[in-house]
Amino acid sequence: MHIPTFDDVEVAHKRIGQWTHRSPVLANSHLNELTGANLLFKCENFQKAGAFKARGACNAVFGLDDEAASRGVTTHSSGNHASALAYAAARRGIRASVVMPTNASATKKAAVLTYGGQIIDCEPSASAREAAVAELVANTGAAFVHPYNDHRVIAGQATCAKELLEEVDGLDALIAPIGGGGLVSGSCLTRSVRSPKTKVYAAEPEKADDAYLSMKAGKIISHDAPDTVADGLKVPLKDLTWHFVSRYVEDILLVSEREIIDAMRLVWQRMKIVVEPSSAVAVAAVCKSKEVFAGKTVGVILTGGNVDLDALPWSSS
Amino acid sequence: MHIPTFDDVEVAHKRIGQWTHRSPVLANSHLNELTGANLLFKCENFQKAGAFKARGACNAVFGLDDEAASRGVTTHSSGNHASALAYAAARRGIRASVVMPTNASATKKAAVLTYGGQIIDCEPSASAREAAVAELVANTGAAFVHPYNDHRVIAGQATCAKELLEEVDGLDALIAPIGGGGLVSGSCLTRSVRSPKTKVYAAEPEKADDAYLSMKAGKIISHDAPDTVADGLKVPLKDLTWHFVSRYVEDILLVSEREIIDAMRLVWQRMKIVVEPSSAVAVAAVCKSKEVFAGKTVGVILTGGNVDLDALPWSSS
Repeated sequence: MHIPTFDDVEVAHKRIGQWTHRSPVLANSHLNELTGANLLFKCENFQKAGAFKARGACNAVFGLDDEAASRGVTTHSSGNHASALAYAAARRGIRASVVMPTNASATKKAAVLTYGGQIIDCEPSASAREAAVAELVANTGAAFVHPYNDHRVIAGQATCAKELLEEVDGLDALIAPIGGGGLVSGSCLTRSVRSPKTKVYAAEPEKADDAYLSMKAGKIISHDAPDTVADGLKVPLKDLTWHFVSRYVEDILLVSEREIIDAMRLVWQRMKIVVEPSSAVAVAAVCKSKEVFAGKTVGVILTGGNVDLDALPWSSS
Repeated sequence: MHIPTFDDVEVAHKRIGQWTHRSPVLANSHLNELTGANLLFKCENFQKAGAFKARGACNAVFGLDDEAASRGVTTHSSGNHASALAYAAARRGIRASVVMPTNASATKKAAVLTYGGQIIDCEPSASAREAAVAELVANTGAAFVHPYNDHRVIAGQATCAKELLEEVDGLDALIAPIGGGGLVSGSCLTRSVRSPKTKVYAAEPEKADDAYLSMKAGKIISHDAPDTVADGLKVPLKDLTWHFVSRYVEDILLVSEREIIDAMRLVWQRMKIVVEPSSAVAVAAVCKSKEVFAGKTVGVILTGGNVDLDALPWSSS
């Protein structure tokens, strides 16, 4: 297990600077009144390819030597990591082949194709996608870039909290949604070196509460096929992210599907920005757990803005 | 007719600074590729009360002497000027009474109430709303603040272009949607003093093309009851805005309802920000009239972000 260090984060930040945005940090008076906290939103919905995933993907892709890069890259992902990897590969001028489940959203598939990525369909199960990737690696020699259980990816995602901590002094807490845990792991890594007093919280859907249960149990627990509107948060922790999450996360806060949708709508209505349901999970947790955050300065990572505008969750609810 | 000067704009900018945002200017690589222009979006959708209208309303409200202010303010408006005036009045601690047509959007009515404004319903016709306002002024002595045909309002809206021109050098063109013409007039006023080489364009829905027809005819032409998805742009020019528009606007560009909706969706999808249909009219014009803007540096004012999330125009189309 290759555990990334903060040196890796600094290298990553230099490496990806040319290919990623330093995303803006926004505040909103209505949300501050609502929560009693001083909330600072790191807007990764404005990131290249529409999500923080561009950071880890660019770090992995631009860290390859020329010979490895020439064989292309591959991954399995139902969403933002897929398009981020396609984006990074296109910038480097190499091939990206992405294994996507047949039930992945049309918008996210379209994004992969926009960046010139190749999609390989597979059944929506862990075994099917792993088999598909293994076959692809065997045939092409492409470099596999796991969506989160990869030291290069975690070091890349860690640059998000690095930018936020560089811009904002005295952050009492930092909260991000947790799926596989790449962003939360990176945030823990940065915070340990740059701002040890900042507490890191993770927010998770009740209907995909595997990280919460893992923390309770002291070992990784994974759900078979969780179903939540926060489609980026269905995947379980793996050894590398478990390393960070189990040691450095202050607490994991759960929110219901209704709370996620309401928070997403609140952000659109009041902040006038487009965020996807997974982003709203962190906002929902801050709105729900007022006693944890009131009176505090809190960084909230809005992870992405890739939404199917024809299927908004409040239209069907 | 009291024609505002750039001195009035400078006074306005100081007066409203405490109550309005200096809104951000965003760029987007996809939209640049699409149009061949260097587009800089002045994001008034992030403005207080969700639209540039807060500028003019705050200038009018905070410019009143104490005695006049004590009798409150009033206006007629189907939308953003109404909530902007209620917002400004609330900040000053005075009463705002707004005459709104019975067919005004529920979201925009709710915004007025949120800021503590009082709504007086009227039939959706010019004569009905003018009668209702006249009665209110007679009864209460409230100061009437016209949505656009008012020198204080135009001077306030002019601060938007002032900020943009302070932030961006060498703007070849500036484009904004046109309804009553308050924002376009203010933009002309600022540009005449600060950047005479910058050409001002107005964008208008084909289905509410009264400003376009007025320019052709050389006199104000108004439609009886135009119907467009860009609900902020249904009102006609008046003498004060005609003064600026007839003299200083380079051209008025027309766009169809389909083009407006497509541009709105494009901004949401690619820029990840929530803009209302009226804002999208300017974007649609830039996308449509490529020959006018290609190779140029163009400021585009995104006027507002107040949208009914339950009735998005592409859901019904």
